[in-house]
Amino acid sequence: MTTSTNATVTVLGLGEMGSALAGAFLAGGVRTTVWNRTPGKAGALAAKGAHHATTVDGAVAGADLVVVNVKGDAAAREVLAAAGESLSGRAVLNLTDGTSAEARETGEWVADRGATYLHGQIMTIAPGIGHPAAVIFYGGDKAVYERFADVLALLGGGASFVSADPGLPTLYGMAVHDTMWGTLNAFLHAAALLSDAGVELTRFLDHADGSLSALLGFLPSLAGEVDSGQYAVEYGALRHHLPSIEDLLRESRARGIDTALPGHTRALVAGAVAAGHGGDSYSRLVESFRAGTEPA
Amino acid sequence: MTTSTNATVTVLGLGEMGSALAGAFLAGGVRTTVWNRTPGKAGALAAKGAHHATTVDGAVAGADLVVVNVKGDAAAREVLAAAGESLSGRAVLNLTDGTSAEARETGEWVADRGATYLHGQIMTIAPGIGHPAAVIFYGGDKAVYERFADVLALLGGGASFVSADPGLPTLYGMAVHDTMWGTLNAFLHAAALLSDAGVELTRFLDHADGSLSALLGFLPSLAGEVDSGQYAVEYGALRHHLPSIEDLLRESRARGIDTALPGHTRALVAGAVAAGHGGDSYSRLVESFRAGTEPA
Repeated sequence: MTTSTNATVTVLGLGEMGSALAGAFLAGGVRTTVWNRTPGKAGALAAKGAHHATTVDGAVAGADLVVVNVKGDAAAREVLAAAGESLSGRAVLNLTDGTSAEARETGEWVADRGATYLHGQIMTIAPGIGHPAAVIFYGGDKAVYERFADVLALLGGGASFVSADPGLPTLYGMAVHDTMWGTLNAFLHAAALLSDAGVELTRFLDHADGSLSALLGFLPSLAGEVDSGQYAVEYGALRHHLPSIEDLLRESRARGIDTALPGHTRALVAGAVAAGHGGDSYSRLVESFRAGTEPA
Repeated sequence: MTTSTNATVTVLGLGEMGSALAGAFLAGGVRTTVWNRTPGKAGALAAKGAHHATTVDGAVAGADLVVVNVKGDAAAREVLAAAGESLSGRAVLNLTDGTSAEARETGEWVADRGATYLHGQIMTIAPGIGHPAAVIFYGGDKAVYERFADVLALLGGGASFVSADPGLPTLYGMAVHDTMWGTLNAFLHAAALLSDAGVELTRFLDHADGSLSALLGFLPSLAGEVDSGQYAVEYGALRHHLPSIEDLLRESRARGIDTALPGHTRALVAGAVAAGHGGDSYSRLVESFRAGTEPA
C-alpha cells in the first residue's frame, strides 16, 4: 500500500515502537526522516530508505509531520525543545504514554511554540503496528488528523479521532487497559480454580465462550446508567450478586486459591448494599470508585 | 414450542427462578407438578395447568424428572429427604447454587437413595429462562442429560453438558461470574475516570468497542499458557505492563478516583516481575492466585 500523500514525516525516538512506526511509514512509501538520542538504532531504517538526521533540529526542519514517541512527556518536551525555532509551523503528533494532564500540557507547550498538536494513544504492541485491526485513539487538532489521515492509516486500520481535547486519547486508552487488567486478573483467578479441579482452560473456554462474549453485551446498558445517573433496575440488582460472591469466596478458600480478589468484589457490593443501594444495578458501583475510598 | 417427550416433571421450590423453570416446562407442553414450602406461590402456575402437590412425597412420586431449585444444597437435601422412598428410581436435576463440593455431596447423597443425578448451573436471571441464548451448564449423569435433552432445551438454548463430575457446572458458572465481576468492576472504575473528565460512557463505547471485544480474543492464548504451564512470550511481557499501570494510578490519584483496584493490579504485576517473571506472559499471574497470598 502506497499513500497518495506527498507529506514528509519525521520520527523522533526509535525504541521498539518508534522503529515500528517509521517502518510502517517507509513501507507505505512516505518520505521519512528518523532521529534517536543514540544513533545506532537508525541503521536498519536507513537501510529501508529513511533519511537519518543526526540532530533534532535537522530532523524537524522541513518535516510536514513530526512524530514523537519517547519515554514520558517530560522527555517528549525535552526532545522537541531541541528543535528550537524549527518547530514553528509544524504539525506534531505525540504518541508518548502518560496521563491525560501530561498530554494536555505538552499540547499547550507545543502550541506556545507555534506548532499544531495531535495526541495519539497506541493500543497495540509494536508488531501490531500497520495491522488493519490496530487501534489508535487520536485527539487534539482535528485539522491535523484530517490532513494526515492517509499517512496515519498506515499505522493501523483502527484509527479513531475521539476529541478536540488532546488529553482524551490517553484516557480512552487507560479505560480500555483498566478494563483489560480487571478482566485478565479475574479470568486468571478463575483459571486457578478451574485448573485446581483438573479442568483444562481451553476446554472451559469451548463451553463458556458464549457466556463470556455475552459479558460485553452488558456494557452498553451499564454505560447508559452511568451517563444518566439512574441505577434502578427491575432484575439483576446488586443484592442478588451477594450469595454467588459468597459461594466464590468459599470455593476459593476451600481450594487454597487467593481470596483477596473476590473479597474485594464482596466488599464493594456489600458496601453498596449496606448503603441502601441493594436494589440498584451493578453500575451503581461507579459511585464507590468515585468516592475514592478503599472498601472496608 | 411443544416438546416431543411424554416425561412428567416435578419442580420443587417456586422462588422467582423455580417459577420461571416450571413456567417454561408448562409453556413447552410438559406435564408439570409443582411444590413449594409455602403453598401460595403455586397458584399462578396451577392456573397455567400445573398440578399443585401439597407434599414433597406426592410431588415426587410418579415424576420422571425431579427438579430442585432452593436456597443452598443443605435445603435441597432437606427437601429431597422429605420425598422418602419415592426418590428411589427418579432422575434428580439439582439447579441449586453452592460450591462444587456441595454439588458433589448432594450428588452422592442422591445416589445413595437410588436416584440418578444431574447438576445444573443456570447462567441467566429468571426472565431469561427459555431464551435461545440462556446458558445452563450441566454435569453428572450424562444418560439423564440425554434422556431429558428436549425437556431441558425448554429452559434455554445454551444448554451444555460439561462433565460427568457434578461439581463442575458450578465451577464453570463461578469462573464465568468471577471473570464478569472483574470485568465490570474495572469497567466501572474506568467509567469513574472517564465521567470525571466529562466523557459520556456511551460515546466512549462507540470508539472503544473494537478494543474491548479484542480483549476476549486474548483468552484462548492465555488459556493455552495456563494449560501448558509455559509462560514465556516474545511480546507483551508482564514487565511492559508496569509503566501503563503506573500511569493509571497517577491518573486515578490526580482525579480523586479509587486507587485500590489499579493498586491491586500493580501489586500483582510488580510482585511477579520482582520474582523474576517479568519476561513471561500476563498468564503467569495464575501462579500468584494459586499461591493464595494477598499481594503486598
